[in-house]
Amino acid sequence: MRPITPDTEAIIDRALAEDVRGGDVTTEALIPPGLTGQALLVAEEHGVLSGLETALAVFRRVDPEVETEARAEEGASLDPGMVVGSVCGPVAALLTAERTALNFVRRLSGIATETSRYVREVAGYRARILDTRKTTPGLRSLEKRAVAAGGGVNHRRGLDDGVLIKDNHAAALRAQGMSLAQIIRKARANAPHTLKIEVEIEEPAQVEEAVSAGADILLLDNMTAADIAASVRLAAGRALTEASGRISLENVREVAAAGVDLISVGALTHSSGALDFSLDLIDS
Amino acid sequence: MRPITPDTEAIIDRALAEDVRGGDVTTEALIPPGLTGQALLVAEEHGVLSGLETALAVFRRVDPEVETEARAEEGASLDPGMVVGSVCGPVAALLTAERTALNFVRRLSGIATETSRYVREVAGYRARILDTRKTTPGLRSLEKRAVAAGGGVNHRRGLDDGVLIKDNHAAALRAQGMSLAQIIRKARANAPHTLKIEVEIEEPAQVEEAVSAGADILLLDNMTAADIAASVRLAAGRALTEASGRISLENVREVAAAGVDLISVGALTHSSGALDFSLDLIDS
Amino acid sequence: MRPITPDTEAIIDRALAEDVRGGDVTTEALIPPGLTGQALLVAEEHGVLSGLETALAVFRRVDPEVETEARAEEGASLDPGMVVGSVCGPVAALLTAERTALNFVRRLSGIATETSRYVREVAGYRARILDTRKTTPGLRSLEKRAVAAGGGVNHRRGLDDGVLIKDNHAAALRAQGMSLAQIIRKARANAPHTLKIEVEIEEPAQVEEAVSAGADILLLDNMTAADIAASVRLAAGRALTEASGRISLENVREVAAAGVDLISVGALTHSSGALDFSLDLIDS
Amino acid sequence: MRPITPDTEAIIDRALAEDVRGGDVTTEALIPPGLTGQALLVAEEHGVLSGLETALAVFRRVDPEVETEARAEEGASLDPGMVVGSVCGPVAALLTAERTALNFVRRLSGIATETSRYVREVAGYRARILDTRKTTPGLRSLEKRAVAAGGGVNHRRGLDDGVLIKDNHAAALRAQGMSLAQIIRKARANAPHTLKIEVEIEEPAQVEEAVSAGADILLLDNMTAADIAASVRLAAGRALTEASGRISLENVREVAAAGVDLISVGALTHSSGALDFSLDLIDS
Amino acid sequence: MRPITPDTEAIIDRALAEDVRGGDVTTEALIPPGLTGQALLVAEEHGVLSGLETALAVFRRVDPEVETEARAEEGASLDPGMVVGSVCGPVAALLTAERTALNFVRRLSGIATETSRYVREVAGYRARILDTRKTTPGLRSLEKRAVAAGGGVNHRRGLDDGVLIKDNHAAALRAQGMSLAQIIRKARANAPHTLKIEVEIEEPAQVEEAVSAGADILLLDNMTAADIAASVRLAAGRALTEASGRISLENVREVAAAGVDLISVGALTHSSGALDFSLDLIDS
Amino acid sequence: MRPITPDTEAIIDRALAEDVRGGDVTTEALIPPGLTGQALLVAEEHGVLSGLETALAVFRRVDPEVETEARAEEGASLDPGMVVGSVCGPVAALLTAERTALNFVRRLSGIATETSRYVREVAGYRARILDTRKTTPGLRSLEKRAVAAGGGVNHRRGLDDGVLIKDNHAAALRAQGMSLAQIIRKARANAPHTLKIEVEIEEPAQVEEAVSAGADILLLDNMTAADIAASVRLAAGRALTEASGRISLENVREVAAAGVDLISVGALTHSSGALDFSLDLIDS
Repeated sequence: MRPITPDTEAIIDRALAEDVRGGDVTTEALIPPGLTGQALLVAEEHGVLSGLETALAVFRRVDPEVETEARAEEGASLDPGMVVGSVCGPVAALLTAERTALNFVRRLSGIATETSRYVREVAGYRARILDTRKTTPGLRSLEKRAVAAGGGVNHRRGLDDGVLIKDNHAAALRAQGMSLAQIIRKARANAPHTLKIEVEIEEPAQVEEAVSAGADILLLDNMTAADIAASVRLAAGRALTEASGRISLENVREVAAAGVDLISVGALTHSSGALDFSLDLIDS
Repeated sequence: MRPITPDTEAIIDRALAEDVRGGDVTTEALIPPGLTGQALLVAEEHGVLSGLETALAVFRRVDPEVETEARAEEGASLDPGMVVGSVCGPVAALLTAERTALNFVRRLSGIATETSRYVREVAGYRARILDTRKTTPGLRSLEKRAVAAGGGVNHRRGLDDGVLIKDNHAAALRAQGMSLAQIIRKARANAPHTLKIEVEIEEPAQVEEAVSAGADILLLDNMTAADIAASVRLAAGRALTEASGRISLENVREVAAAGVDLISVGALTHSSGALDFSLDLIDS
Repeated sequence: MRPITPDTEAIIDRALAEDVRGGDVTTEALIPPGLTGQALLVAEEHGVLSGLETALAVFRRVDPEVETEARAEEGASLDPGMVVGSVCGPVAALLTAERTALNFVRRLSGIATETSRYVREVAGYRARILDTRKTTPGLRSLEKRAVAAGGGVNHRRGLDDGVLIKDNHAAALRAQGMSLAQIIRKARANAPHTLKIEVEIEEPAQVEEAVSAGADILLLDNMTAADIAASVRLAAGRALTEASGRISLENVREVAAAGVDLISVGALTHSSGALDFSLDLIDS
Repeated sequence: MRPITPDTEAIIDRALAEDVRGGDVTTEALIPPGLTGQALLVAEEHGVLSGLETALAVFRRVDPEVETEARAEEGASLDPGMVVGSVCGPVAALLTAERTALNFVRRLSGIATETSRYVREVAGYRARILDTRKTTPGLRSLEKRAVAAGGGVNHRRGLDDGVLIKDNHAAALRAQGMSLAQIIRKARANAPHTLKIEVEIEEPAQVEEAVSAGADILLLDNMTAADIAASVRLAAGRALTEASGRISLENVREVAAAGVDLISVGALTHSSGALDFSLDLIDS
Repeated sequence: MRPITPDTEAIIDRALAEDVRGGDVTTEALIPPGLTGQALLVAEEHGVLSGLETALAVFRRVDPEVETEARAEEGASLDPGMVVGSVCGPVAALLTAERTALNFVRRLSGIATETSRYVREVAGYRARILDTRKTTPGLRSLEKRAVAAGGGVNHRRGLDDGVLIKDNHAAALRAQGMSLAQIIRKARANAPHTLKIEVEIEEPAQVEEAVSAGADILLLDNMTAADIAASVRLAAGRALTEASGRISLENVREVAAAGVDLISVGALTHSSGALDFSLDLIDS
Repeated sequence: MRPITPDTEAIIDRALAEDVRGGDVTTEALIPPGLTGQALLVAEEHGVLSGLETALAVFRRVDPEVETEARAEEGASLDPGMVVGSVCGPVAALLTAERTALNFVRRLSGIATETSRYVREVAGYRARILDTRKTTPGLRSLEKRAVAAGGGVNHRRGLDDGVLIKDNHAAALRAQGMSLAQIIRKARANAPHTLKIEVEIEEPAQVEEAVSAGADILLLDNMTAADIAASVRLAAGRALTEASGRISLENVREVAAAGVDLISVGALTHSSGALDFSLDLIDS
């Protein structure tokens, strides 16, 4: 399993701090300190696993004496009843860590699972499913990883690993009298040379101007499938094409059929429901 | 507007750190430093507002020269097109802060909105809608506030402001030969005197034992509406009753009709979708 | 021994940072890096032990090569000369950690010891000895634990795990024309359902109004023993009673004799003196 | 008033975090958000003031809308009933900040007051009263300032702003066959040139060896007044002399009379009781 | 002036913490608290300014009462004696902040100045001067900004905003039997689509393979000027070319003359000397 | 090897955070997770080693599975091609950690090496080479250690472990009418007794006044060698003498020959170039 990064360590510490706070009063009142036991982390639904390693690290953080075992890999397919991990150690620690650990694996597996649905939906087409920056504040690194676990591809991690000229950039600059081509050329001149230039366009008529000015990627925002297809044709392989805006499981296949290279779906991270898991104490 | 707490300041700083990182390369490449402007924060859907003050604080944190104005209150009803706030200052700062700010208000308003649906559904019954500890790691304080904005009531903030004896506590202690009554009495003896004792029960037959042993609140977990009603009758006002487990918008009214005092709904925080907002630059 | 929590780790790191700073110049100038040795942590007074595990963790934090052994448990009775722990490793690390480690165990054992005096004083009565929120800024978690080690019981950890309507709350609301009963009912309506309602009263005449309005606990503040006894009689078991205000070792038994359930003593944490310990290097 | 340092800001934030936690549930349940008021910070005992500026900063940190006014200076003499500061703003913020603010000013004024008693006791002698490193973990900077407010003088802030060869250093090195003089010369050779060399001695017979070897300051540990006087005579002004060990208000004057330059008193910071203050809401 | 980012705030706080520590004992011993004054920040050498805003923020952080004025812009040309800023307020604060403030502006202006020398050297050629990731740990953001102030261009900020296949990547994969082309294609397939692919090559003979496999940028490492020229010719505009490795002021013009697009110079950040500035107190 | 301090841990974490950020995209795209290997850390130039332990800790921090071995000690002499350490573990971790690890050992060895040149230059004279507070913000502790590794001696770590009355202090106080002797006596009266008093003087004529007033150390700032020699003679062993200001490798021997005890050289830390090291993957 890959190492827990300092970033993830900090996320775990904050999550425990906001849940455990002054102590788990119920457990302290009831569970004898010396009592040890084992518990299984069990999937309750079909889906795709993500965040197991983070969940297990929560138990070890509550008490280094807890031993954890992963029984499934990031990205594994889940069925109801499937045991994905086990934790063994002081029962008090298992109970104190339970909710925080579950919160991680449930949310992240929810994202992985939803992503996998989109990925399956576009199977057979060239289009890859992308996430967006519409992630939960504080959890971007884990949520991006969950998207990858579900078969999706990560878009920009932040504002500095990709140039993306969006509607508001364009609006501000058009008000200064700049054309789309001028904006793209200015971006190319000023932005880091390691980054491609992506630009949002609203209609097929803008494709030629954008490509000619040097855009590497076209963000086709809120277009109809017909317009997307037209844009892809006009781009003619000179730029990658990315569809976005109100993509859903209902229409994603139609969008993919329009020939785009990439489809970005904000809902992967902003509206996926949690996937259900439980922690079952077992007789030892 | 209530002050931004240090806790929320830290959440904002982390959210900006993970998004802005080394800088907003697109904006830096394109937007002249001296350019100022105004933008409106606009609701795109019907719903309930939460997190506006946090979103506005994001803009001020990116650049203290940005002036922000809240035009709606926490908990306000939203209609598509409704302007809830405005921000005014360097355009570069507005663009850099946009996504992080939106991520807050979208997620939190999503929770408030979903909560309000449950609250509306049980109107006329005594039952109040509660959240759970199934919140997003790192955002509990804000998400609990969003539930309140939607008309819900907050359950425990963490593991130390309420005693809740759950299935896994009982399982561990029953394996030691303790009865439910003994468990409850042990909790009462050891737990902080400022806290009520809540205990999870699985069938109406346990009500009498729990109440007699001193339980203040009964958590009726995964019961049918009929069993809930039976439990409420048996409790006879001697303890608060809380229903939980697989509550949905479809069945919440039936559960409320069974007479419980409280209905806790994990989905409020773990599976509410984001509510759509946009940031519109306007000509100044 | 229970695990060192992240909260305690942070407390230790801060304590070392403010003491060691740029390095222990005396030790660096004098002690050869390779020199190893052993030292004993010895109680110098009669008392009750608290904070040993934190003190030992200080040594390990200064140098992970230091091995520590606890020879007494949290809450153990101490006699002068009693060895409570030993540390073994690089002498430089032992000397650098010495003061910070001692500062923890001395202060915390001082609190535990003072608490045990109050507890012994009320032996035979129902009253339990409570701490307050008058703790040292930054050390609340450890100080509350020390009170427990001394046989006391913890009151609220903070402002959110108990409702306590104090004089200033009442003053502000009476100025708005509210009666005590109205204040209590408002608290009951708005406060978390998992928390009991405690209210401060100043004279026995208020008991009936408070209990009838639903107070779960009565804080009898600065009352004479006679008034306390009268209040307890009037409450008649319908609410817990807590005495507070200018409680000392001289008068605590009299207060207990008045029949209260709880006696809170701010001095446990705000004015306990340190208990003396020393660290003795031994020939190895 | 001197500025609040980043170090003190962090101390305040931690103190509030451990007290306020998820929110002040009593105040939130009871106090209308718009209600404003004023409160006075009042001394309840005779003593010396320290920490007022920190206490006032607590209120502003809870809500920047609170306006604070200091009416007495660090080190001022206090009488019962004396108003040392006022705070004005949202009543909810005043109540939420009250306990944390009081905890600071009470503890720090307790230290200043106790220090002033020692200082008064040695009036007329050359001896100055010093603190030690026996401070509360996490509060050293504030506690050292409180000692100064009480008329005392600060000894080392930490392990790197003074060389102090203590019993355990000597024990470790004597076991290696080094004499006191050799130890002192090694320290002089290796330690930073900006620092004086202080060495602990146990009997007057060691004075000559220590001074000859280059000690700048002699720590006379646990000596009788007669031995202190003898040591001072033997030092003959060639080194500063510092008495320490079991110094109390009862014996400090006798120690001072023995002619030492400095008397260090651990009890100033490890065992001073809190000084009583109250916060009184006033009709506005 | 652009706002101080949270990242820079943290850098300033750490710098002050490591310098001021327990307090500026010299200033506290000597300077009366009420004494105010003004000081000028003066360049002592020819060069290019960077970091002035950070330096001025240091003064304000030490005491918010200090008023600061920038009299020159980031990137301005400096002559000996030129006043670039002034600070006005408590003299104690000015003296305490002096060294930390100077440390920032001196180092950063040193980098900007050295960068400007390289930029001037290649004037007339297409080549732009790039920095590298060979920055001072903890100061990357400020040092990259200093490079920009000197007329240079920023290369990757970190490991995730550009794909750069270096010798060690290639070595590890060649040991697995992969060709350069296979490595490049694997990178293209797996790396974020927003990033260009840069690959290090060692001789002109590799140009065709790299370009054909899809490399966007060629890193010509440690090549002779002749080989660089040959590589540029072979690339024929199909990829950007970047020269690196042992570039100095002596040879940079020759490298530029070879026709590369980019020249990266580690020494800009790892070996630039500080530029001298002084802080002069003036009579007010 | 001495333990990594919490301070250094934090420096490493920040350095990795600013370099690795969202992940090492090149390595993730190319290197199979299971691939393990070994790499050697090799010196590329003559010099003196510092920071190896910090560099090795970087690898372990990226992945605890990496095993590291130091093959040379802090302060060791380096020759080109000398292997100073090895790292063994997942190749991905080795590549991700490489640059950050090298940045530490390169910079710190650069400082140690430059220091050693000054030390060698003054060999045979009494003068010791000192660093200053002109260090890189955030790295002072490591840079001071590097100076020691190079044979230099550390001056003040910060503003509180030495009293140093500099030109600006004197200027502010002379404007108040104080003489140099008065300033020194005020410092002696108010400053911590554990610290020596150093004062900056500008000409030999001030020596007598300074020494008579009690200065322990004279900072001879920007004096000619002749004036330094005159000052040393006038001090006549009653105070340490320290030369500073525009000291270079060219003139340091002449300054030493003038007889000073100490020579402080800002350039050691503000302008030392990095020393070259490489990380070589080897076939395993």
